Amino acid sequence: MTVSERQMANAIRALAMDAVQAANSGHPGMPMGMADVATVLYKDYLKFDPAAPKWADRDRFVLSAGHGSMLAYATLHLAGYAAPTIDDIRNFRQLHSPCAGHPENFELDGVEATTGPLGQGLAMAVGMAIAERHLNAVFGDQLVDHRTWVIAGDGCLMEGINHEAIGLAGNLNLGKLIVLWDDNNITIDGAVDLSSCEDIAARYAATGWHVESCDGHDFADIRRAIDAAIADNRPSLIACKTIIGKGAPNKQGTSATHGAALGADEVAAARVEIEWPHAPFEIPADIAAAWKAAGERSKVVHQEWKNRLESASNKDDFTRRMNGILPGDLEIQAYLDQLLTDAPKVATRKASEMALNILTASLPDMVGGSADLTGSNNTKTPSTKTLDKNDYAGRYVNYGIREFGMAAAMNGMALHGGIIPYGGTFLVFADYARAAIRLSAVQRIRAIYVMTHDSIGLGEDGPTHQPVEHLQSLRAMPNLLVFRPADVVETAECWMLAVSHSTGPSLLALSRQNLPMVRSDVSENLCANGAYRLKSAVARRKAVLLATGSEVEIALAVAQQLETSGIGTDVVSMPCTQLFDAQDSAYQSDILASDALIVSIEAGTTFGWERYTGRDGLRFGVDSFGASAPIDSLYDHFGLTADKIAPQIISRLNQ
Amino acid sequence: MTVSERQMANAIRALAMDAVQAANSGHPGMPMGMADVATVLYKDYLKFDPAAPKWADRDRFVLSAGHGSMLAYATLHLAGYAAPTIDDIRNFRQLHSPCAGHPENFELDGVEATTGPLGQGLAMAVGMAIAERHLNAVFGDQLVDHRTWVIAGDGCLMEGINHEAIGLAGNLNLGKLIVLWDDNNITIDGAVDLSSCEDIAARYAATGWHVESCDGHDFADIRRAIDAAIADNRPSLIACKTIIGKGAPNKQGTSATHGAALGADEVAAARVEIEWPHAPFEIPADIAAAWKAAGERSKVVHQEWKNRLESASNKDDFTRRMNGILPGDLEIQAYLDQLLTDAPKVATRKASEMALNILTASLPDMVGGSADLTGSNNTKTPSTKTLDKNDYAGRYVNYGIREFGMAAAMNGMALHGGIIPYGGTFLVFADYARAAIRLSAVQRIRAIYVMTHDSIGLGEDGPTHQPVEHLQSLRAMPNLLVFRPADVVETAECWMLAVSHSTGPSLLALSRQNLPMVRSDVSENLCANGAYRLKSAVARRKAVLLATGSEVEIALAVAQQLETSGIGTDVVSMPCTQLFDAQDSAYQSDILASDALIVSIEAGTTFGWERYTGRDGLRFGVDSFGASAPIDSLYDHFGLTADKIAPQIISRLNQ
Repeated sequence: MTVSERQMANAIRALAMDAVQAANSGHPGMPMGMADVATVLYKDYLKFDPAAPKWADRDRFVLSAGHGSMLAYATLHLAGYAAPTIDDIRNFRQLHSPCAGHPENFELDGVEATTGPLGQGLAMAVGMAIAERHLNAVFGDQLVDHRTWVIAGDGCLMEGINHEAIGLAGNLNLGKLIVLWDDNNITIDGAVDLSSCEDIAARYAATGWHVESCDGHDFADIRRAIDAAIADNRPSLIACKTIIGKGAPNKQGTSATHGAALGADEVAAARVEIEWPHAPFEIPADIAAAWKAAGERSKVVHQEWKNRLESASNKDDFTRRMNGILPGDLEIQAYLDQLLTDAPKVATRKASEMALNILTASLPDMVGGSADLTGSNNTKTPSTKTLDKNDYAGRYVNYGIREFGMAAAMNGMALHGGIIPYGGTFLVFADYARAAIRLSAVQRIRAIYVMTHDSIGLGEDGPTHQPVEHLQSLRAMPNLLVFRPADVVETAECWMLAVSHSTGPSLLALSRQNLPMVRSDVSENLCANGAYRLKSAVARRKAVLLATGSEVEIALAVAQQLETSGIGTDVVSMPCTQLFDAQDSAYQSDILASDALIVSIEAGTTFGWERYTGRDGLRFGVDSFGASAPIDSLYDHFGLTADKIAPQIISRLNQ
Repeated sequence: MTVSERQMANAIRALAMDAVQAANSGHPGMPMGMADVATVLYKDYLKFDPAAPKWADRDRFVLSAGHGSMLAYATLHLAGYAAPTIDDIRNFRQLHSPCAGHPENFELDGVEATTGPLGQGLAMAVGMAIAERHLNAVFGDQLVDHRTWVIAGDGCLMEGINHEAIGLAGNLNLGKLIVLWDDNNITIDGAVDLSSCEDIAARYAATGWHVESCDGHDFADIRRAIDAAIADNRPSLIACKTIIGKGAPNKQGTSATHGAALGADEVAAARVEIEWPHAPFEIPADIAAAWKAAGERSKVVHQEWKNRLESASNKDDFTRRMNGILPGDLEIQAYLDQLLTDAPKVATRKASEMALNILTASLPDMVGGSADLTGSNNTKTPSTKTLDKNDYAGRYVNYGIREFGMAAAMNGMALHGGIIPYGGTFLVFADYARAAIRLSAVQRIRAIYVMTHDSIGLGEDGPTHQPVEHLQSLRAMPNLLVFRPADVVETAECWMLAVSHSTGPSLLALSRQNLPMVRSDVSENLCANGAYRLKSAVARRKAVLLATGSEVEIALAVAQQLETSGIGTDVVSMPCTQLFDAQDSAYQSDILASDALIVSIEAGTTFGWERYTGRDGLRFGVDSFGASAPIDSLYDHFGLTADKIAPQIISRLNQ
């Protein structure tokens, strides 16, 4: 083979600049700058099989600098993946092309994570590397033993989540994680020193990382650095000194190559510069063959792995887990039956712990954790021992005070497969992790957020700790199921729904305060309907009270007062509005009786509850920030007591 | 004076443990651990005058570890501030006490920032320190020359925002910023090494900081470290080695002291340990006098400053700015009048730049910036030259890829006073900064967010960059004004409302794409009503179209089609739902005519629009994540064209 690595790299450069030029939109600078590094990675290091892109023990590669998506599309195409085809690449950034502006995990095999929101790709890779070490500890080297690779840019390293992610990786000593940093000294606004004077190598070293540097355009030097990274047992950062847009003779090295097409003249000049006389989207046969060979390098290793899997005693469990299938019975029914006898009055965060005790015992896939609020989030169970650098077989991650890093790591674990991650913090701090929660939803993955202290009901900690807008703002997010269970039974039901929901994330909003058991029937998972009639009107129905979580108890008390006044009142518990929205209209109409006053009661903003109450209904909630006081003072102060609500309903009905 | 510093510090310890014990809620560990450091700070270093807590040139002190609020309340009380009184402290964490669970800037003078959400206090202090250097450059040493002090805990340093904040401070070389780190090795879940192995000193040094260490219980050593920090021209971190809960003999040094009352027995034992025989909330006269003396230390300096201010030529401008008052005329009317002639079709992000050109010229208070998207956010103007370590008189901060750090720094500048901060990023990345946006709202301060690329209209960058749920999720936040102007006129009007709104933050959601001018009258700021009738029905009114921003153009086209079909149609532009909600019911009823079908059109989630359309209205929007394609393909794909909307309205009206 006489094809040089430079020629292979130039194939990436050509596809990148031509696709961006055709779309007149995109980011050529990163793919052209990192083409040499990517070539070395794919040609000599990355363990992958384009014919079996979901091979469980493949290396994971995450393009954290997702704007350089053409680097991913070019390498996947060249290495022989079924998609993207060259036509897909021609249609870069057009409707229905899998070659979207930023790489999307659900569009293409080989795109391991959806990236673009900076910093999160690397942080998800940390989660993948945790998953790898954990599954290695559980299933052994013969089934799980692979690396996680990342290409990250200056933006990824400047974002705050980078600090959280590398702190976690350093403390867990994730030695099979290697980050290739596109050290090109350029951000969108210009040179990096406009905004940073940081010694990044020193910072990574301070956090337990091994750091290398290389000339990102010298193939031998790239290999030397990667070899050193592999040899070191710590996570590694390799600073790849590169020239952004390398190959575009008049623009390279400047932010002008970052986020716009080079222009026809500069593309033509680049063709001369990189000696690429071929037409756009045309790859010469010898260069194509060299890339195909890179794609076939791991076939033997893959076959050996398949042979080991066939003879492995734990093959079935491994396969089940990697396919994301639950075992047949999660053994929760006996627990539910027992609840009918015990009728415990517990906080739903405690009820969550009780459900988790059962689920984590029967579902080894579950790996939990908390952002330093374990005792408050009630997320640790007897089955989930600590996962740390001394025992990767543990199933509980001490994420530290790193909500965003936790959420992104959970995404990475879910993307890796074999693990159902859950993690806890206070609901108000969902704001810290929100960008990662969104990526859970975008990526359609099963990450489960345990968000306790879900309202003013947390009491004395006050406005900074009391969620107000959070429930509704999270319900507004597509593809995220928000559960707010009312008691110990609903909490178990919601947990069952969350672990069973494999195509998107779930978030459980849980109370700090104790709540009475309101359910007396556990034969059917009523939460699966999203909302259901908990109590039917006795007198002729004039009001329907919709409530969630801790306010269901209040709604029942309101209903009692109303019935005493001759006002027939339904109480509807509504633990998941999104699942209710998915019911057929007959069910919805039956619950939201059109001949009754519809009233919502939730200790959060009333914004958006008009969806169910209409403009003519009544909405009780908290439409300002909270206050610091004991819980009973607060519920009274904000008017969320039966004595304050019932008269207003009566008054409205008498109008 | 025979009172020892130890006795002064023990007064803090006693008040902290007794107040937490009385409330049976709170965090005694931090105040008891940092009591010695706080005593040195207040007694010998902090420049403050309890009789004039708003003195413009006071040192700023931020308790970033806000859970240790009793440290703030104790020191403010002891040093002689009018509030909190000892009764306020007795009512710690009770309704209406200014001594809330976490310190709140609007409750007490001397509480410079609302803290509790970890990491943000330090990040706001960075903003205060930027404000100080900027105002020093503008007004000179004679009026502005003070330090910013922070007490931060391990949590503050572990949060991702810490990375962003210290990176910004290091690059701007904010030498008058001194962070006292409560280096007690304990987090809620246990020892720090559960979740971190970081060499924090090395990390700070790598980011351009000066680092000292001291024994946080040795008064002389604390002084030595602070003197060294003052002498160094870089921002300084002082690692104060402390014992959490020091003074509680059986619990100190453990997380048991962190977040719960010590219990009566341990409080009694601590009284013995710290030789504090006094009753709860009783401060012996000699110790009280020593603290009062600390509070009077800076009186002379304050008087000298007042004398300088009286004779300063720029006194009026300085006083105006520090009081947050706008100058009389912002000279925008001539610009608006000219628009009627020019009728430019520009993106609202460009319209924002045009308005900013005027405003930044007439309002020197405005200090702008962007999280590395200057050219996309259109946030830089001829009046705002770069603010960097070589020129603090500049008015434009290159925040780097640090949305969260930017927002928190903006909060700090607004809290400092004298500055109206604005900063830009893409609307979708509001998620990264959301926790700081919330603190803008909680703190009731004028920070202005310039959020461009506000819908699927940004096109090819795809789902990760296209806001869907963001507008509604931000509107759900109390005390945040969300503006989405439709054209160049509305953009200027919204900017005027934002800079005039001094009691809370504003957020402008701005288009990437060009939009035609829809307004033909600039005599009144119609955006001030939140929504207004842009076009009245010609035929008998049967429909009212509510639209915002880029969809107003579409609504006008829909109305034209409907009128052609004989359906009288109002078009209402609704740039700020919150201001509309604040109008009287007559105005609201007039806009939302009850005899018409109400229809909303916004290129975001339809969630919550039932507030105006009712359940029977129609809502057009985007209820899934977006897609990567050119803008016209996307609006068609998501059904947001006049040709797709009008028939559905006709069909509904014909039902």
